[in-house]
Amino acid sequence: MNNLLKKLQNKQIKLHELEKYTTPTEAAKIRLSFIENLTKENFAELKKYNLDPENLQNKNIENFIGSTELPLGIAGPIKVKGENSNGEYFLPLATTEGALVASVSRGCKLINLSGGAKTDLEYIGTTRAPLFSVKDLKTARKFIGWINKNIEKLEKLVSKVDPFVKLIKIEPFSSGRNIWLRIYYNTFDAMGMNMATQASQKIAEYAERNFKLVKLVAVSGNLCVDKKASTMNAILGRGRKVQAECFIKNELIKKYLHTTPEKVVAVNHKKTWQGAIHSGSIAANAHIANIIAAIFIATGQDAAQVVESSSGNTIFEQDKNGVYICVTLPSLMIGTVGGGTNLPKQNESIRLMLKNISSSREKSGVNKTHKLAEIIASACLAGEISLHGAIASGHLASAHMRLGKGVK
Amino acid sequence: MNNLLKKLQNKQIKLHELEKYTTPTEAAKIRLSFIENLTKENFAELKKYNLDPENLQNKNIENFIGSTELPLGIAGPIKVKGENSNGEYFLPLATTEGALVASVSRGCKLINLSGGAKTDLEYIGTTRAPLFSVKDLKTARKFIGWINKNIEKLEKLVSKVDPFVKLIKIEPFSSGRNIWLRIYYNTFDAMGMNMATQASQKIAEYAERNFKLVKLVAVSGNLCVDKKASTMNAILGRGRKVQAECFIKNELIKKYLHTTPEKVVAVNHKKTWQGAIHSGSIAANAHIANIIAAIFIATGQDAAQVVESSSGNTIFEQDKNGVYICVTLPSLMIGTVGGGTNLPKQNESIRLMLKNISSSREKSGVNKTHKLAEIIASACLAGEISLHGAIASGHLASAHMRLGKGVK
Amino acid sequence: MNNLLKKLQNKQIKLHELEKYTTPTEAAKIRLSFIENLTKENFAELKKYNLDPENLQNKNIENFIGSTELPLGIAGPIKVKGENSNGEYFLPLATTEGALVASVSRGCKLINLSGGAKTDLEYIGTTRAPLFSVKDLKTARKFIGWINKNIEKLEKLVSKVDPFVKLIKIEPFSSGRNIWLRIYYNTFDAMGMNMATQASQKIAEYAERNFKLVKLVAVSGNLCVDKKASTMNAILGRGRKVQAECFIKNELIKKYLHTTPEKVVAVNHKKTWQGAIHSGSIAANAHIANIIAAIFIATGQDAAQVVESSSGNTIFEQDKNGVYICVTLPSLMIGTVGGGTNLPKQNESIRLMLKNISSSREKSGVNKTHKLAEIIASACLAGEISLHGAIASGHLASAHMRLGKGVK
Amino acid sequence: MNNLLKKLQNKQIKLHELEKYTTPTEAAKIRLSFIENLTKENFAELKKYNLDPENLQNKNIENFIGSTELPLGIAGPIKVKGENSNGEYFLPLATTEGALVASVSRGCKLINLSGGAKTDLEYIGTTRAPLFSVKDLKTARKFIGWINKNIEKLEKLVSKVDPFVKLIKIEPFSSGRNIWLRIYYNTFDAMGMNMATQASQKIAEYAERNFKLVKLVAVSGNLCVDKKASTMNAILGRGRKVQAECFIKNELIKKYLHTTPEKVVAVNHKKTWQGAIHSGSIAANAHIANIIAAIFIATGQDAAQVVESSSGNTIFEQDKNGVYICVTLPSLMIGTVGGGTNLPKQNESIRLMLKNISSSREKSGVNKTHKLAEIIASACLAGEISLHGAIASGHLASAHMRLGKGVK
Repeated sequence: MNNLLKKLQNKQIKLHELEKYTTPTEAAKIRLSFIENLTKENFAELKKYNLDPENLQNKNIENFIGSTELPLGIAGPIKVKGENSNGEYFLPLATTEGALVASVSRGCKLINLSGGAKTDLEYIGTTRAPLFSVKDLKTARKFIGWINKNIEKLEKLVSKVDPFVKLIKIEPFSSGRNIWLRIYYNTFDAMGMNMATQASQKIAEYAERNFKLVKLVAVSGNLCVDKKASTMNAILGRGRKVQAECFIKNELIKKYLHTTPEKVVAVNHKKTWQGAIHSGSIAANAHIANIIAAIFIATGQDAAQVVESSSGNTIFEQDKNGVYICVTLPSLMIGTVGGGTNLPKQNESIRLMLKNISSSREKSGVNKTHKLAEIIASACLAGEISLHGAIASGHLASAHMRLGKGVK
Repeated sequence: MNNLLKKLQNKQIKLHELEKYTTPTEAAKIRLSFIENLTKENFAELKKYNLDPENLQNKNIENFIGSTELPLGIAGPIKVKGENSNGEYFLPLATTEGALVASVSRGCKLINLSGGAKTDLEYIGTTRAPLFSVKDLKTARKFIGWINKNIEKLEKLVSKVDPFVKLIKIEPFSSGRNIWLRIYYNTFDAMGMNMATQASQKIAEYAERNFKLVKLVAVSGNLCVDKKASTMNAILGRGRKVQAECFIKNELIKKYLHTTPEKVVAVNHKKTWQGAIHSGSIAANAHIANIIAAIFIATGQDAAQVVESSSGNTIFEQDKNGVYICVTLPSLMIGTVGGGTNLPKQNESIRLMLKNISSSREKSGVNKTHKLAEIIASACLAGEISLHGAIASGHLASAHMRLGKGVK
Repeated sequence: MNNLLKKLQNKQIKLHELEKYTTPTEAAKIRLSFIENLTKENFAELKKYNLDPENLQNKNIENFIGSTELPLGIAGPIKVKGENSNGEYFLPLATTEGALVASVSRGCKLINLSGGAKTDLEYIGTTRAPLFSVKDLKTARKFIGWINKNIEKLEKLVSKVDPFVKLIKIEPFSSGRNIWLRIYYNTFDAMGMNMATQASQKIAEYAERNFKLVKLVAVSGNLCVDKKASTMNAILGRGRKVQAECFIKNELIKKYLHTTPEKVVAVNHKKTWQGAIHSGSIAANAHIANIIAAIFIATGQDAAQVVESSSGNTIFEQDKNGVYICVTLPSLMIGTVGGGTNLPKQNESIRLMLKNISSSREKSGVNKTHKLAEIIASACLAGEISLHGAIASGHLASAHMRLGKGVK
Repeated sequence: MNNLLKKLQNKQIKLHELEKYTTPTEAAKIRLSFIENLTKENFAELKKYNLDPENLQNKNIENFIGSTELPLGIAGPIKVKGENSNGEYFLPLATTEGALVASVSRGCKLINLSGGAKTDLEYIGTTRAPLFSVKDLKTARKFIGWINKNIEKLEKLVSKVDPFVKLIKIEPFSSGRNIWLRIYYNTFDAMGMNMATQASQKIAEYAERNFKLVKLVAVSGNLCVDKKASTMNAILGRGRKVQAECFIKNELIKKYLHTTPEKVVAVNHKKTWQGAIHSGSIAANAHIANIIAAIFIATGQDAAQVVESSSGNTIFEQDKNGVYICVTLPSLMIGTVGGGTNLPKQNESIRLMLKNISSSREKSGVNKTHKLAEIIASACLAGEISLHGAIASGHLASAHMRLGKGVK
């Protein structure tokens, strides 16, 4: 170790080369020592980790030095009923913001008292949109025609990339001599962005080889749309489009949200929808990102995809006896295998979320990533109900005072 | 313990009430046992945590059951020069997506070879936008006048909420009889959303008491805009508007990005900017969210604020001898005290990021949260340079193949 | 006449009832007299009109009192080559803003010197999006299934509305228990909004009758998107998606635009594209609305549809020897029959625009509305080239000084 | 004439040079003859015009050949009460789309029965946003500082451009080394875009001369935002921000709109607001563009500015006894002098609109362009009420059938 540390300090080797000379575990230690020496600081906490560096290498991280750790709170259980779920599920939330777990729990309670959340799911697929250039409009038109004609060949091509990626469809968008192919892939239980990139690269190379007149400009042309907030994802969908609804009776709103149906619906219309237009927002919701972020981190999803995954809408509609509430997530990007979902704690959180603790029977052979999506949408519904209620009743500030600042 | 567990199981007490009867540490154990019993599963990993439940209670989380843990990789050091920074800084990135640390490191290298990133920072303030209703347009106009006239009183009012929150300004927006006050607060080193909410509640109550004709509809009216992607934040700013630039010579682009200036600039114009418009995106960048998410989780920021904080723009402009590159983050929401930044590992990561390891002298008495913002913007610059380069050179898919899937 | 005027004044009849008692021509006179008496003003100019009130009644206007008149300037001829055009065409522009005709003419010249504009056209169809409600997500899913299953029946239903409206396709969008059906119609040479509305009403009534569980909320649900600027039209298209391109050599740019390729391309990147993102704009262009408005008014299109029809993009891409320029109009709503196109002057302007004055042969049997679209896109291209040039050369202000203010 | 026509045909002179050799009236004849010869068509209608070519030259149009003419229908009178209006006003609408005048009239009736429209107006100013470049972030920061310091000098500079243009304020926006100055001008009764351009050119030249390190890229940098739909105009305003409201009792809604308060409010929430978000629209309204376009053409406004001027919002809020309705137009660009407003018929239409036919007294010395704005907003309110009603009652299709297709 001392030897490698010295070599690092003498710039004979580089920070990322340590794993060539020693074990990942040892490399992490040396790397952090090197940093401690340089910074003249002690990072005792970063060193304490339960991860196995051997399993992370070339998969999850480079230049591993230790870990960060977020507390996990449990909300729910929440009653969910959908194509792939039918039962009660706990919600593990990784967050550092006080009041979030309590708020979601309150929403779960209200949902459960109202018969549970009902969900609807559509599998859209993981999208990647390579960008091509040709010389003119005419060739662009031809290229689009060529793509449409060769779709079966491209399907075969994709099927060779990985058994777990299948071409669903290709939607071309063109502007002058630039063509974007928004390619939709079935990546099964994986979020699948890497596979989609590989497959798109293969498609691009095949196109360049066989259509000749086309050049790939960028394997990702920002119409994917990955990790950016966009109207395109809202309109066309991405990953999974999933919705969760419930109907809450007037009495329950009064009793548990301490407000009236009129007020909570007005909050939704004025704050959520009008506020969205006035602020030039892509989506109309209160705080879906809070729930998405907390579940994404707990379950090992790609945290940068909180951006598009949280871009959802929440409606409150007043009926005679109660309020109809629904959350729509048009572009939820999640997986139950691959990426961070394989890490030990994250994997347990997925297992925990998927476990039905009620006596209701789930269908056999359900798709577990679809099921996770249904539970996530329901969790967002719980969060939206609770926050809309807290705002309508005027209790938001005091709740945060109590739970977010260490004041009892 | 057995006793409380039984009470839980008999529904004599509730999941969130455990801390009333026992220590937080014990409560966490009982809670997880209860869940393990219910789910008939073992969650051995979740139990292993280095956090102290005593310190989390009523601050960071409710219903604590354990922790989640993400690997930390180190990128950089990166040379940064701004009003509050002047040196070289390491970048701790918490991510589970392979290739990210390597990519940012490559960008850092190129920036360092180009003299470092230069930054510009503007403190905008933490915003909260309560929404009010009056009876008609005339009263709305009066209310806005009343607010403007009473601004000094409101300043005083806010100063009593907390020594670390100060009123900066109030921008009214109205639509019919609804009025949003977008209130900007100086919350110093804290991200400050809770304080901004408390202060806004006080302002709202004062307005209701003294203007009489106004009713608070929602303490947050979605023009804040918190945790949603919006054009308003891009135009008016939020938190800190921070930018980082560098100029990279043509030789360096060829040598390290394996592409030409023309190609990488074309990627920026066609993918990043045209792609943004075609997809109805609010911001034009390649993957700022990746870097923001990784640093936010490492340093204990509010992960849901990745949404607006990552909504930034990246420009590449070709000059004769090289390419000018700049990242603009108009609404970066961060803190160095409060929330998750106080957690042990997160705190160390902040300390690590802020430590200058070069011989350059920083100004004395710099604002450390401003400094963190400057380093974050520079890290985003590094990420954008690297990814634009990988796309221009056609190496994106292969890099991910190598580093993101465990394939060597 | 005196008798009816008195009845009007005594409120025995109403302003819009005059046509019940007399000829439209007489009614117009009485109506204006009544207004002149009431206002104690003389409207001598409004009375001078060349329109025949008999032909307007129940078609183009109610409560007819006279006319407004805009000067018509002629730009071009412009060389256009597309699927439906192949020749040189004059551009009649109805505008009151000096410099516009001169600017478009300059663009035409440059296009002609560069071999003409080449165009690409895709017929999307006229869209109307009725909005329905059901009781829950499950029924919404069923309703969408029902629509998909009954598409042939709906086609037949539509074919009975009018021989000139045909159902192309139906795209459902749902949010909770609300379902929008974005219905695309082939309305041939007509813009066809009225027919699309009638047909959508029939579809809605059929759905209500046969699916039972659905209620029509609004025959137009704002996903049409008619007369509002939207990203949806840009992504999915509306009416006709039409593009026009040309390649201008460096020498011509210098000689006629008095600027350099670098400068005019920089104006496009920074002003047009970056400016679009920074201002939260849906489209990236310099002044397409000017050309669209002028041609729409000249040719009797629905002037309110300038909004979506002008929402197009303009790209300038620098190649070695020149600059590639293209205008994309994703949602051009026009007709050559029906509405204002039947008015005498408007009809002549259409005839004028469609007349090929060159010796080039057009294909026989071209679609004349497609042809008009191709010429309009080319006219926009001319306008964009000229204005980008004027801005790059710094001549915009002086041109307006000369041509827009009566200063020679 | 024959002589000049021959010269034209022999290409000895050009189409736009005719006015050098003869009177504008003669020039127009020769020009159209030339076109008739070329096209072998007769344009008898275009020749019939009431405009005086002498007055158009170098002001409103180039290459004048004749006119286009739209029928004018009269809606109203409408009762309006605002800072600058207090009375009843007729609405001249230039349109070729049947049913529009009737629909607006119905709205006026309902507004009048409800006590009239009340308005609120804020003068924002005409904006132009020149775009500058400097070498780096630091210089950009300095340039912004320099602008702020020299604001009084710039005020003086502007005051010399024209007595009717005054600098109001400058808002800088920057992204990297590019700086947009959004400059607001008071242009009094003129729409004033040309003056704003001249003044901005002067400011730019002064800046280039005195700050040295800055270069003007584009006198219009698309943050103006002129003739493009943008969120920036909605947030910051442009021209005049004007609103009109009314409160309609439940009985009147039932009697005149043939629907219920619940239904019409649901149409507003679901179609207008949710539809806006789902379609990625900038504004939430039913058909404001129809009314804006018709009044703009009637009164000689710049028809291309229908785009931003129609980008407004409409709210319907249900109270116990009725429905509160308000239209907000954040960026209405109009004038009562200059441009097309000076044309004879257009001028009469302005005169007609501004004439109070009731016995109510207007304040003395009101601003007539403000007053026009208030009436326009009220007209939009009428249009929105009527169309929301027609949609809620299910009568839209049948109304168009009756009034838009010549079917009685």
